Amino acid sequence: MRGEALVHSVLEEYGMLTRRALRRYLPATEPRRYLYDLVSDYPRRSGKMMRPSLCIATARAFGARTEDALRAAVSIELFHNALLVHDDIQDESQLRRGAPSLHALHGLPLALNAGDILVMLSLRPLIEYRLELGLKVALQLIEEMERVARESGEGQALELGWRRDNVVDLSDADYFEMVFKKTCWCATIAPMRLGALIGSRDMLPEFETLIRFGFFVGTAFQIRDDVLNLIGDERFGKELADDLLEGKRTLILIHLLSNATAQEHERIAAFLASPREERIGAPLRWVVERMKHYGSIDYAQEVANGLAGAALHEFENLFDDLPDSRDKRFLAEMITWVLRRSS
Amino acid sequence: MRGEALVHSVLEEYGMLTRRALRRYLPATEPRRYLYDLVSDYPRRSGKMMRPSLCIATARAFGARTEDALRAAVSIELFHNALLVHDDIQDESQLRRGAPSLHALHGLPLALNAGDILVMLSLRPLIEYRLELGLKVALQLIEEMERVARESGEGQALELGWRRDNVVDLSDADYFEMVFKKTCWCATIAPMRLGALIGSRDMLPEFETLIRFGFFVGTAFQIRDDVLNLIGDERFGKELADDLLEGKRTLILIHLLSNATAQEHERIAAFLASPREERIGAPLRWVVERMKHYGSIDYAQEVANGLAGAALHEFENLFDDLPDSRDKRFLAEMITWVLRRSS
Repeated sequence: MRGEALVHSVLEEYGMLTRRALRRYLPATEPRRYLYDLVSDYPRRSGKMMRPSLCIATARAFGARTEDALRAAVSIELFHNALLVHDDIQDESQLRRGAPSLHALHGLPLALNAGDILVMLSLRPLIEYRLELGLKVALQLIEEMERVARESGEGQALELGWRRDNVVDLSDADYFEMVFKKTCWCATIAPMRLGALIGSRDMLPEFETLIRFGFFVGTAFQIRDDVLNLIGDERFGKELADDLLEGKRTLILIHLLSNATAQEHERIAAFLASPREERIGAPLRWVVERMKHYGSIDYAQEVANGLAGAALHEFENLFDDLPDSRDKRFLAEMITWVLRRSS
Repeated sequence: MRGEALVHSVLEEYGMLTRRALRRYLPATEPRRYLYDLVSDYPRRSGKMMRPSLCIATARAFGARTEDALRAAVSIELFHNALLVHDDIQDESQLRRGAPSLHALHGLPLALNAGDILVMLSLRPLIEYRLELGLKVALQLIEEMERVARESGEGQALELGWRRDNVVDLSDADYFEMVFKKTCWCATIAPMRLGALIGSRDMLPEFETLIRFGFFVGTAFQIRDDVLNLIGDERFGKELADDLLEGKRTLILIHLLSNATAQEHERIAAFLASPREERIGAPLRWVVERMKHYGSIDYAQEVANGLAGAALHEFENLFDDLPDSRDKRFLAEMITWVLRRSS
């Protein structure tokens, strides 16, 4: 099996294994109605399971058994879901994976609290590694998770700060820094680092290469997300163009702001400063039209293509010495998949 | 030195040491304006430092050196501050320690994010114990912290849920369960368990006794907090009677609801269901007057006195075998202090 079919088959398989293993970490105790029902909600909604699959595939490519990687896969998925809960509050998102967001269902205070619990629940599977892989590896995994949380939080701070202060003079480099922290650490770097740590049973020099690889793939993934948000239909289970309604500083928006005339620049800045409800309809359509006019969407997709090329190069550095396997092929195919996926 | 003077002197000394050690864990890197300035804000505001002091005193009473306990003290204080940031968002509190709350200063999204970072920063000092006390103790300390987070979150869920659904048929037992989880774990149980773990270098059978002791002292502490919120002035740096404005289910309110006439009960329920601004003034004064009429405040203070008696009993079980020391006397005096303090 090759190409997209391989990617889907692995995502399906490792996704299902992770979902099953994850259930054990969702407490079925009281208080349910105010806490654990909320905690279980997002993890039970169906995601792509890219993060746990990257973790398991990397661990296996480095020689681990699937069952050795499952706890780390669960940990990453729980942490990712914690970020989603808090993200949705911060972005005032009303939808997540096709259903109302957690705070829309239960109110902000209880949703925020459920997100807090998800963060700490993500440590449990890692603590348990002490019995299987020893104290040292368990503690290294926890330290990795602490790093992910810090990097994600720094990236999140940049994005939220830019929006709050309506910053409109950003460069591509600013975007890359933000996405490196906010997206890549949790989406690609940490899953693969945890996997490699489990597979190799210790820190490896390849860890820095993994960061670069994860940055290239993760950023291509994020840019594709930004593109799909503009050209897709509601297949994400999110509102169309809601990035613009939320005022997210995407590479596309940054390109538009850099290429717009002074008058257009002013109008876009005013659009971004206006209340969300006032952006809907004609103002939103005008911004999207200008993005098309200046080729901002194509530009972003091209940057993503370039990043994928760089990722392929790093992939060879990382995995050339490892024997061929389905997992190794999956990791290679992921590079193309993140660029082409339509959902 | 004895009594209140001893308590103040120890809180002062251990508080200062913790504050100094804590600074090292507040990153002085970018992004500052959107993240680390916010992260450092609450920890820099002056609190009572009860939690770190309990941790250091317990560790020393069990034979540890002060410097061995400092990292755990810092960890607890960071975690406590994380809870405060998220609490203030959930309660829509405008003041904290005499200054505007973090979300009032920077907006909800960035404040929420800073709270997330504080949670994970609280793990750093514990991870570092691997070098000093070994991998096993480091991991045990992290596991304790994960437990604290879970217990606190469960307690928080109960309190927030009761308020959201305007639950008015609660018993004293409900209150004790909520406070055991929400207050005691972070305020007394965990600080002392971490301290005992560091002092004894391993798990001890006394750990269950510590939970009971922490429950008695912590609940007495919380009840005194509830009482001061009604009879104090603004010395807390919080609004007076803001517990009632936030609809908190205190033992005092539960006592009033149990003793009120059917008509009064209905009126109190309506008061709690009305928007915060409509509760200010005459409606608030009426509820406080009814609390005084039914002796609800005195009742709560008497319950706290009873809990302190139980705490003294557990104290003897816990510490009778340990040699007399300033730290042991401090821990004993804390029982009376939590009952009598005026701020």
